[in-house]
Amino acid sequence: MKIIKGNIVESQSLNNVRFIKDGGILIDDNGTIVDVLEKIPSDTKYQIEDYKDKLIMHSFCDMHLHAPQYPMVGMGMDLQLIDWLNTYTFKNEARFKDLDFARNVYHRLANELIKNGTTRVVMFSSLHVDATLVLMEELEKAGVTGYVGKVNMDRNSVPELYESTEESKQETLRWLKECKKFKFVKPIITPRFTPSCTNELMEFLGNLAEKEGLFIQSHLSENLGEIEWVHSLHPDTNQYWETYDKYKMWKDHTLMAHTVHSNERERKAMKDNGVISVHCPDSNVNLSSGVCPVRTFLNEGIWVVLGSDIAGGSMLPMYKNIQAAIKASKINYIRSGYKDMFLSVNEAYYLGTSSAHKYFDGKEGFATGKKLHAIVVDDSNFTPSVRELSLKERFERAIYMMEKENIISVYSEGRKIF
Amino acid sequence: MKIIKGNIVESQSLNNVRFIKDGGILIDDNGTIVDVLEKIPSDTKYQIEDYKDKLIMHSFCDMHLHAPQYPMVGMGMDLQLIDWLNTYTFKNEARFKDLDFARNVYHRLANELIKNGTTRVVMFSSLHVDATLVLMEELEKAGVTGYVGKVNMDRNSVPELYESTEESKQETLRWLKECKKFKFVKPIITPRFTPSCTNELMEFLGNLAEKEGLFIQSHLSENLGEIEWVHSLHPDTNQYWETYDKYKMWKDHTLMAHTVHSNERERKAMKDNGVISVHCPDSNVNLSSGVCPVRTFLNEGIWVVLGSDIAGGSMLPMYKNIQAAIKASKINYIRSGYKDMFLSVNEAYYLGTSSAHKYFDGKEGFATGKKLHAIVVDDSNFTPSVRELSLKERFERAIYMMEKENIISVYSEGRKIF
Repeated sequence: MKIIKGNIVESQSLNNVRFIKDGGILIDDNGTIVDVLEKIPSDTKYQIEDYKDKLIMHSFCDMHLHAPQYPMVGMGMDLQLIDWLNTYTFKNEARFKDLDFARNVYHRLANELIKNGTTRVVMFSSLHVDATLVLMEELEKAGVTGYVGKVNMDRNSVPELYESTEESKQETLRWLKECKKFKFVKPIITPRFTPSCTNELMEFLGNLAEKEGLFIQSHLSENLGEIEWVHSLHPDTNQYWETYDKYKMWKDHTLMAHTVHSNERERKAMKDNGVISVHCPDSNVNLSSGVCPVRTFLNEGIWVVLGSDIAGGSMLPMYKNIQAAIKASKINYIRSGYKDMFLSVNEAYYLGTSSAHKYFDGKEGFATGKKLHAIVVDDSNFTPSVRELSLKERFERAIYMMEKENIISVYSEGRKIF
Repeated sequence: MKIIKGNIVESQSLNNVRFIKDGGILIDDNGTIVDVLEKIPSDTKYQIEDYKDKLIMHSFCDMHLHAPQYPMVGMGMDLQLIDWLNTYTFKNEARFKDLDFARNVYHRLANELIKNGTTRVVMFSSLHVDATLVLMEELEKAGVTGYVGKVNMDRNSVPELYESTEESKQETLRWLKECKKFKFVKPIITPRFTPSCTNELMEFLGNLAEKEGLFIQSHLSENLGEIEWVHSLHPDTNQYWETYDKYKMWKDHTLMAHTVHSNERERKAMKDNGVISVHCPDSNVNLSSGVCPVRTFLNEGIWVVLGSDIAGGSMLPMYKNIQAAIKASKINYIRSGYKDMFLSVNEAYYLGTSSAHKYFDGKEGFATGKKLHAIVVDDSNFTPSVRELSLKERFERAIYMMEKENIISVYSEGRKIF
């Protein structure tokens, strides 16, 4: 057993951050949390990893990003979703049939994630099974855990990025078999989005997920043109979400990225079925999709987490996306005539950490029985300080000022990565 | 004479960025630009500073920030303007009567500005003359140039941060005398904002600026509550701007920060009098002030530049504020039903560089006769690339992905700082 000692910043629920000055997290030899200590007994028999005055925070979870889009961060940002997909994204993703290229990009991506304190992800790969396996290997090696999806897409793509319905099915099965070798990175069923998949493929994927007990991720109601397109492809449905529901993919733990334009009925369907909204505020502004009314989602009891949506989003570090979520919510606050309250720093921290950690292990905060996912933040070099700051102030400043060099240690799935 | 060689990224006007692959900027021994070369003759007689494949861009200008607020970056962001001023800002600024403290903060600030490629500023100090002189010294030493204002405020403050009308006048005169010793940093008249200055003080400052030929900076129409307050203080005026006009401060080269809520009449008064809007997009969202309709300002021919507004803004680097300007304009684009076009990367780069450099030397771009203000950006480590990128793509990516470690060289007022 070991005590990780420092100033604990624990997100216990949406509103509540617990600050413990000189506290500790007691973990066992497997890195499982045994207790959070408000005080460390001077005669403790446990080994102490002493981070002194530094902040011990939750590590971050990036619940929606496209790994093969990493090389195109910050390009094509003057375009909207569908043009951006056709001009940049699909051509870029097609490059990942080259495994050396994939290795190079994914090695870099996995290490950048860890250096920035992101220890858990739910990620889109491309349609290429071999490159997807390379991605999963690189994530495991770097210490990133979570879910990765081989993307399924058998229509409405460019010639360079194509799989037939049959190929898509067979390749998915081959991929799932290969995935058994991974310990920390698991597969998730990933229809790109409704316009990319034939009904036959959707049906196959829904059944497969059910049979294998796999979770599902996709996109929902990101852009107005996209919504119309989906409706024209599925005229028998009333709303976008029903195109997933039709194929048994609208269920508990299904992650739906964006939900910018989800109306009350669509939101109710999320809430009633345990579908989770992955809010990607930076991407939604970059691609001029809109601003998701997160406060409304939270008021209605919908589970919300955050995603960088690389490369619609242009910022990999989740502390920056937490900031972006606050800023996006302030836009809604202003737009509502100061009625829809913006996300406080506590709340946005929760969405980027605790709310998403719960996806993986069922509990919020540094709860007993969870594997430790944490970062240690050295905030001593931010700026000279006017007076001694409270832990709450230091925490707020960390969210706004942190850069990767301030993250001096990372714990992922109970293991100290650095 | 010397040639600065590399890939030139010159903002020639609002829309137009000139890209020159393997080009050069020819400067004389004083660092004055003689020519921009599309090709370097192989038999050139001039010394070459060869930055090879790197990007040579304009340095940035931060046209509105509060130096004494630097220690409070990223704190109190859950408050709105007036509460934020009273809870955090004024108390913080009061600390700057302590010159050791001021030296420590300003040394750090000046060096962070340069490392982030900001070579020109127009800045608020606090009311303290001696600390203001320390600030100006530290800026000169670090290589930052521009204007600094001792803040004038003789009402509506907290007890710790107070000067009487007479003190304010006398201290301003003492400060102006001391300023003569600086070469690169000049004084600018700085009434904090209308609510902070009595009519007597405003009249004194307007006359002083006229007599000494000094420029003026202040705040305008940031927040709806502030606008009402100003109106109640000056019931004889129709609009906020008239409270400056009344005292001869509404004129050519006057910088007005924010202008979020300036209506058509106020904007016309800006245009007609050569008053400049300093757009501070990050601050305006942080403090829930609103989103300035920059496209409208540009369409109406108003001169617009950018400011970080530290510490209402939480990002000192101007490349991040350029991103924030693009993102804020996309909010307006969405809100207008996709009518008010967002700022392109070219346009936002112009606002953060060329448009503001013109404030200091009258010309856009790397024009002949200007002192060189430039940064050299090493973009080789951004992400692995899918294919060879165009200079335009590399430039766009630099705006989105640059961090201070990518800025490997800075030229300020013709001098190579590092």
